[in-house]
Amino acid sequence: MSLYEQLAERLKTHIRQGLYTPGQKVPSVRRYSTQQQASAASVVAAYRLLEAQGWLEAKPQSGYYVRRPDSLPPQATQTCDEVVPCQVSVSGLAVRLYHQRDGLITLGAAVPHADLLPVRDLREATHRAMRRAPDAGSRYSFPPGEKSLRLQIARRAAEAGCALDPEDIQVTCGAQEAVHLALRATTRPGDVVAIESPAYFGTLQAIESMGLQALEVPCDGDGISLEALALALERWPVKAVLVVANFSNPSGSLMPDARKRELVKMLAAREIPLIEDDVYGELAHARARPHAAKAYDSTGNVLYCGSFSKTLAPGARVGWLVPGRWGQAVSMLKYVSSMATATLPQLALAEYLASGRYERHLARMCRTVESNLLRAQTLIAGHFPHGTRVSRPQGGFLLWVQMPPDCDAMALYQAAINEGISISPGPLFSPQEKFRNCFRLSVALPWDGRVEQALARLGALVEHGKVRSPG
Amino acid sequence: MSLYEQLAERLKTHIRQGLYTPGQKVPSVRRYSTQQQASAASVVAAYRLLEAQGWLEAKPQSGYYVRRPDSLPPQATQTCDEVVPCQVSVSGLAVRLYHQRDGLITLGAAVPHADLLPVRDLREATHRAMRRAPDAGSRYSFPPGEKSLRLQIARRAAEAGCALDPEDIQVTCGAQEAVHLALRATTRPGDVVAIESPAYFGTLQAIESMGLQALEVPCDGDGISLEALALALERWPVKAVLVVANFSNPSGSLMPDARKRELVKMLAAREIPLIEDDVYGELAHARARPHAAKAYDSTGNVLYCGSFSKTLAPGARVGWLVPGRWGQAVSMLKYVSSMATATLPQLALAEYLASGRYERHLARMCRTVESNLLRAQTLIAGHFPHGTRVSRPQGGFLLWVQMPPDCDAMALYQAAINEGISISPGPLFSPQEKFRNCFRLSVALPWDGRVEQALARLGALVEHGKVRSPG
Repeated sequence: MSLYEQLAERLKTHIRQGLYTPGQKVPSVRRYSTQQQASAASVVAAYRLLEAQGWLEAKPQSGYYVRRPDSLPPQATQTCDEVVPCQVSVSGLAVRLYHQRDGLITLGAAVPHADLLPVRDLREATHRAMRRAPDAGSRYSFPPGEKSLRLQIARRAAEAGCALDPEDIQVTCGAQEAVHLALRATTRPGDVVAIESPAYFGTLQAIESMGLQALEVPCDGDGISLEALALALERWPVKAVLVVANFSNPSGSLMPDARKRELVKMLAAREIPLIEDDVYGELAHARARPHAAKAYDSTGNVLYCGSFSKTLAPGARVGWLVPGRWGQAVSMLKYVSSMATATLPQLALAEYLASGRYERHLARMCRTVESNLLRAQTLIAGHFPHGTRVSRPQGGFLLWVQMPPDCDAMALYQAAINEGISISPGPLFSPQEKFRNCFRLSVALPWDGRVEQALARLGALVEHGKVRSPG
Repeated sequence: MSLYEQLAERLKTHIRQGLYTPGQKVPSVRRYSTQQQASAASVVAAYRLLEAQGWLEAKPQSGYYVRRPDSLPPQATQTCDEVVPCQVSVSGLAVRLYHQRDGLITLGAAVPHADLLPVRDLREATHRAMRRAPDAGSRYSFPPGEKSLRLQIARRAAEAGCALDPEDIQVTCGAQEAVHLALRATTRPGDVVAIESPAYFGTLQAIESMGLQALEVPCDGDGISLEALALALERWPVKAVLVVANFSNPSGSLMPDARKRELVKMLAAREIPLIEDDVYGELAHARARPHAAKAYDSTGNVLYCGSFSKTLAPGARVGWLVPGRWGQAVSMLKYVSSMATATLPQLALAEYLASGRYERHLARMCRTVESNLLRAQTLIAGHFPHGTRVSRPQGGFLLWVQMPPDCDAMALYQAAINEGISISPGPLFSPQEKFRNCFRLSVALPWDGRVEQALARLGALVEHGKVRSPG
């Protein structure tokens, strides 16, 4: 390897380590040549190589900067003619996504790695809960669930702008059950449910399992388009609207508070329930947690779903549903579908939340996933074909990648799985199997060389793995 | 209180304490007068008083026996004309049943009291599970659930005559979720499901929530009548049959193995799935656990549901479903409705089961509930109106009480709740609200004076609480 190639490798390492982050200026040629005791010519050659490889970009009169891939532009609002309810069938592939095997680098499922979670503190909280209530495992925690936990949930909801009474809260087996119960309470088989496009496949599967029809409503960078939604509501007999207003899955978009308020008002006026899935709301990278749409609900028309699965303990299977005016139906459906939520995990989480360590944990976790997202963006800029664009989420740990139109994410998914890397291909996020050139990455995992190699390998597969249409 | 009344009270206490059990002969007049140092005339007067009160019965040429209430005769098989599918709506009352309040004597819900469960051993098993898998609470236990637990379930199923591979087993949030998933996998809204009459209200609620129709099939002392079922299947488009073959809820009936085999064969031939809820199968009072109907399934046509909620830990919310040929549908529905079952409770139960203490616990628990059932039968004989009949379950902890036809169990339920006693009124167990003069008692609780007083009070309420129609 020649000297300038060595210099280039060294700078790449620094970028990977986060010494220089995307959008940041790297040292000037003069400074870097002094620092590295190399000739200016070698540094210039190294920078040009990195530019050619997509790592750096030159700005005239300014210098070299760590390149980010182009961000996704706000999607053009589609005309309402394209919005048609349809049957859903994404379940086969979605189930396979979760089948983990040893050695697989899982960038597919949105599951936080144990290294990012307060495993030790939670274990201690579990011990405390068992000491405090020795027979906890033995007794049913009938709906609405453990009071001590509902109290903590109500306290945290205040941060999201929601004034909740603990009695308003139904504890569930994770947000999946919450969304499921909310859909069952508000719809009947054959009904039309309006969803974001793209939308989380777990929600699409729920819709599929109930024989509902999904109506994909276009989104822009600020979430679901209210104009498109209003037109859709005029045209179709929509029985419920389901959104992830904060750090949507998979697009990462954040709906501004004004739009949330407008959305809640629009649906209340039409008496169409709004189901809000807010599992990522607490993972804001900025200091302040965004409001929930529920914060603007004065009529009980919003069914608010949350969970500790993305921030604390996926295995606890503890989430919640604030059912608004569907309280009685939801309570009945909870009995019928699982009777109760496991008692000990509820008490353990209540203990942990009461300990006051959650805020610090959240802050640390947010720093980690934000940093991981930046690194992933950088690697995508360096390794993916020109024209690849990525989302710029302000919260959560999901990245939505849009490859050039001639790329096929299903082919990439298959080629990647064969090499031990999982991703979530775009068609999973649409009942009409749109987004064929897109995929979702989850980066809630400890960052290391294997992850970097995996991202580099994904980029190489796009070029060489029959992922692009020839010619 | 006169001497003979004192003697009578003393003997009642002995009967309550189990010194003399129902059907057993009490000491002869001569022997008791010697034992109690009372005159023979006083003992005769005491025995006659107890006979008048319903505690004893005299058998000519033999002596006095502790009276049992008349047992329920096998129900007459109804003609098939009466068997009509219908909508279900029992959920309002059923939900209220579980709303416990302090001081309530809960004879209503079929929930084992913590005193009857191995609370301490389970806590230790939980600690061991946390030591063995420190991050257990953090990671999802994706379908089909924890391998170590499925192994234990498969081992125990062998006792029920079922040769299961752990891979055949889907862990669920209790049997309620198992039955729910089984119904969803095999039916569509509007379909007809054949059930036992009477049937568990949790199942009726599930049927109600899915918009299914229930077809009540008559039962005799050996479970569902195959003749009535065959006629019903000819007449109606039944899509699934659901039974509790072992110690049915509420009637306590046990289906003989030959009838199980015949039932499985009959439904396999018609390709109508059989959903078997076997939550009471392990609570046989005799030594041998009865076979499951699943034991006779060679085609995967039986969906077998079980749980640890009745025998170990209701609060763990751990049950299972062996879905037979509906494996793929059930796996998808499990993801959709709750994603996964909580991890730590699964691992804790696996640890406990591996410790080898389960058999001893089951034997002890069975002795307790069998003894409680006998005591309850005796008290009902002593305190309820003439003509009251009770079930004679050979397993489980539920007693089905049939009062004279002019008694109203809904009125008794209301009068009893006002006095802090809960029971399950008969109409809950029928979509057509049959069984108005029946109720179900659950006696899985530590037996004490309060329980005795509650049963005596129930008997008094029948006479004085506007529970009987006047005249």
